[in-house]
Amino acid sequence: MLDVYTQIASIPIGYNHPALTKVMTDPKNMCSMILYCVIPGRCTLLTDSNPRINGMKSNNSSSYMTGGFSRVQTMACGSCSNENAYKAIFIWYRNKMRGTPEPTPEEVRTSVINQVPGCPDLTLLSFMGGFHGRTLGCLATTHTKAIQKLDVPSFDWPIASFPQLRYPLDQFERENAREEARCLEEAEDLIVKWNQKGRHVAGVVIEPIQAEGGDNHASFDFYTKLRGITKKHGCAFLVDEVQTGGGSTGKFWAHEHWGLDDPADIVSFSKKMLTGGYYQKDSFQPDKPFRIFNTWLGDHTKNLLLTEVIKVIKTENLLDQAKRSGKVMLEGLYDLQDKYPHLLSKARGIGTFCAIDVKDEDTRNLLLLKARNKGVVLGGCGTQSIRFRPALVFKEHHAHLFLDIFNDAITEL
Amino acid sequence: MLDVYTQIASIPIGYNHPALTKVMTDPKNMCSMILYCVIPGRCTLLTDSNPRINGMKSNNSSSYMTGGFSRVQTMACGSCSNENAYKAIFIWYRNKMRGTPEPTPEEVRTSVINQVPGCPDLTLLSFMGGFHGRTLGCLATTHTKAIQKLDVPSFDWPIASFPQLRYPLDQFERENAREEARCLEEAEDLIVKWNQKGRHVAGVVIEPIQAEGGDNHASFDFYTKLRGITKKHGCAFLVDEVQTGGGSTGKFWAHEHWGLDDPADIVSFSKKMLTGGYYQKDSFQPDKPFRIFNTWLGDHTKNLLLTEVIKVIKTENLLDQAKRSGKVMLEGLYDLQDKYPHLLSKARGIGTFCAIDVKDEDTRNLLLLKARNKGVVLGGCGTQSIRFRPALVFKEHHAHLFLDIFNDAITEL
Ligand code: FES
Repeated sequence: MLDVYTQIASIPIGYNHPALTKVMTDPKNMCSMILYCVIPGRCTLLTDSNPRINGMKSNNSSSYMTGGFSRVQTMACGSCSNENAYKAIFIWYRNKMRGTPEPTPEEVRTSVINQVPGCPDLTLLSFMGGFHGRTLGCLATTHTKAIQKLDVPSFDWPIASFPQLRYPLDQFERENAREEARCLEEAEDLIVKWNQKGRHVAGVVIEPIQAEGGDNHASFDFYTKLRGITKKHGCAFLVDEVQTGGGSTGKFWAHEHWGLDDPADIVSFSKKMLTGGYYQKDSFQPDKPFRIFNTWLGDHTKNLLLTEVIKVIKTENLLDQAKRSGKVMLEGLYDLQDKYPHLLSKARGIGTFCAIDVKDEDTRNLLLLKARNKGVVLGGCGTQSIRFRPALVFKEHHAHLFLDIFNDAITEL
Repeated sequence: MLDVYTQIASIPIGYNHPALTKVMTDPKNMCSMILYCVIPGRCTLLTDSNPRINGMKSNNSSSYMTGGFSRVQTMACGSCSNENAYKAIFIWYRNKMRGTPEPTPEEVRTSVINQVPGCPDLTLLSFMGGFHGRTLGCLATTHTKAIQKLDVPSFDWPIASFPQLRYPLDQFERENAREEARCLEEAEDLIVKWNQKGRHVAGVVIEPIQAEGGDNHASFDFYTKLRGITKKHGCAFLVDEVQTGGGSTGKFWAHEHWGLDDPADIVSFSKKMLTGGYYQKDSFQPDKPFRIFNTWLGDHTKNLLLTEVIKVIKTENLLDQAKRSGKVMLEGLYDLQDKYPHLLSKARGIGTFCAIDVKDEDTRNLLLLKARNKGVVLGGCGTQSIRFRPALVFKEHHAHLFLDIFNDAITEL
């Protein structure tokens, strides 16, 4: 099988990269890693003096992080990464409001019973079509499919429109600029209104590309202006790179494409990063240990594998590879939509992080099936899109192979 | 070090059991497990027809589960186990209210934007002193320390008192029975009142022993009656065995001590179980795939290790071992509290799942430190308790060794 979906974008460098086999079969790791961490279920990082508990210094974990992120907090999956990032944002915001991290006795008392002021009525602003996970906090900021949210109680938090761009982009520049301006205005309006009614917007959470929601892109200018709005109104800006992070856009983080010095306050990750976690600025580090905490805080074996993955990305120049393979992919998709305009539209992407729309949901699903039967694994997203999520070792010849088979599958429709 | 805390009760059979080393060094597993699951970050269980996605049949995973649980849903940690169990409860309850799993168009529309009726105003009843995790849904049912909850928005859900038993139990039988009756009455009152005001109590969530909250026990009779109340009012009963499950009470699940045919609707687990997840009755299985779902749904390597752990528990008779070691522990703790009545009180426990109170928090913390410096790892819980959480391979001679060192540490206070 040619896997162009990779377990929902969560396989960074393929299924059996020799560098990773080596990590897993190194007797030193068998001892120190498997016996003491995997088998007992990962060592709990319980010592107050252990810097890991209060956010590792980020240079220890990945030299790919830029933009003023001084710390990384490991977690185990995308959901706990976002849940805890949300908590860090709320704690930061309340400390600002209060002027001190020291709570009042009333706050201490009420927090334990879920009441204000200890559990304040703060909110997060999210976007229609966004996906940030399925635990109850994350789910309150997820707005993709009803099936994910139906029957589950949620928080009444503000939701802004995400730009619906028209394609091809170069033919709709003016319309798309207007659409983005409309969405930015709506987001800012919501922040102002919710702050006015006392339900302060502590943070804004967004993906650099709405992945589950249908691979919805917005311009780098949109994100730049949105970042400006968060600064103007004192909201934290959380960029969820759970699906976009790890290199497939041709940069290690998708937000790097924006070219900003201060792109975000927190960046969450998982999937291709094998572990979960988030990078944060110093100011988001809670004042006390155990405010952000859980039993395992991730899985040390995954950190060891990630270290190796990052090495391989560098030595094999896989970010450049993603750019090159992505170019073949996207040009091929453009050709296909020209060839089958009644079936395909809106080919789009950055690096290999590409997608295309099919005329309707049933046809999309049939196409996924036909491709699978020809040996290509693909995944859908949104209502009628196909998302392409190859591993970073996906080379130009894989892209050509994929395009040929995909073309064959289309002809069978 | 003699570890009587085991990474917050999450090491089932010690740090280097040969059976587990064998699993991790078996070349067959290197291929099938490490390469295809660990390294790429665990295979996503994405096929609709894969029974795992809709809850594995429980007899595949552990023959220890009784009480009508026909399915197990794997997860990755205690928090996602409870978060998803909560969702399963809400879905089940709404289906009952609606009389069908098919939502109205209005429910579909509103669910995506966090509004009623799609995101209904249902509640869960939890208990003061209970701990069920730290993600936002779990945190709404956690009521232990302010530091875990402060500054994080929460749900306004009903919270009942948990019995505060007086020790020694045989001297306070009447008082304790009265206290339990009071708490049961309060719980039932809350259910009735919240149902009346339209904020229905979909489920009740409780630990068989409140572990983080201070090793607070209630009688088996209390749990039996509480189970009856949930049935009477149509609430789901979720028993959180994240800390109590896995054998340390001398039975595989702490709720087995209650001796009920129908002890619960859902039982969640993690820690000693290495993976996370929950057992559930058929009726809690959502009608469609992807209602309960996430990228990894656990980690297959942990399932392999768990299978081996369960084998070892059986072949080495470790449940009986926990009973025997627990007897030595508890009798030793009784002796110590008789010897140092000004310092120690409330020795309590089932199996090796024991605890004792120290006169105040500072003295407790000092005692933990002194014990550690003598080579014994212990953990606190509640405000002034010490909890004992040895692995299942903790034998009588370990218990004696521990008691000797603990005694030495006390004399140094
Ligand atoms: S919530 Fe992330 S592993 Fe459980």
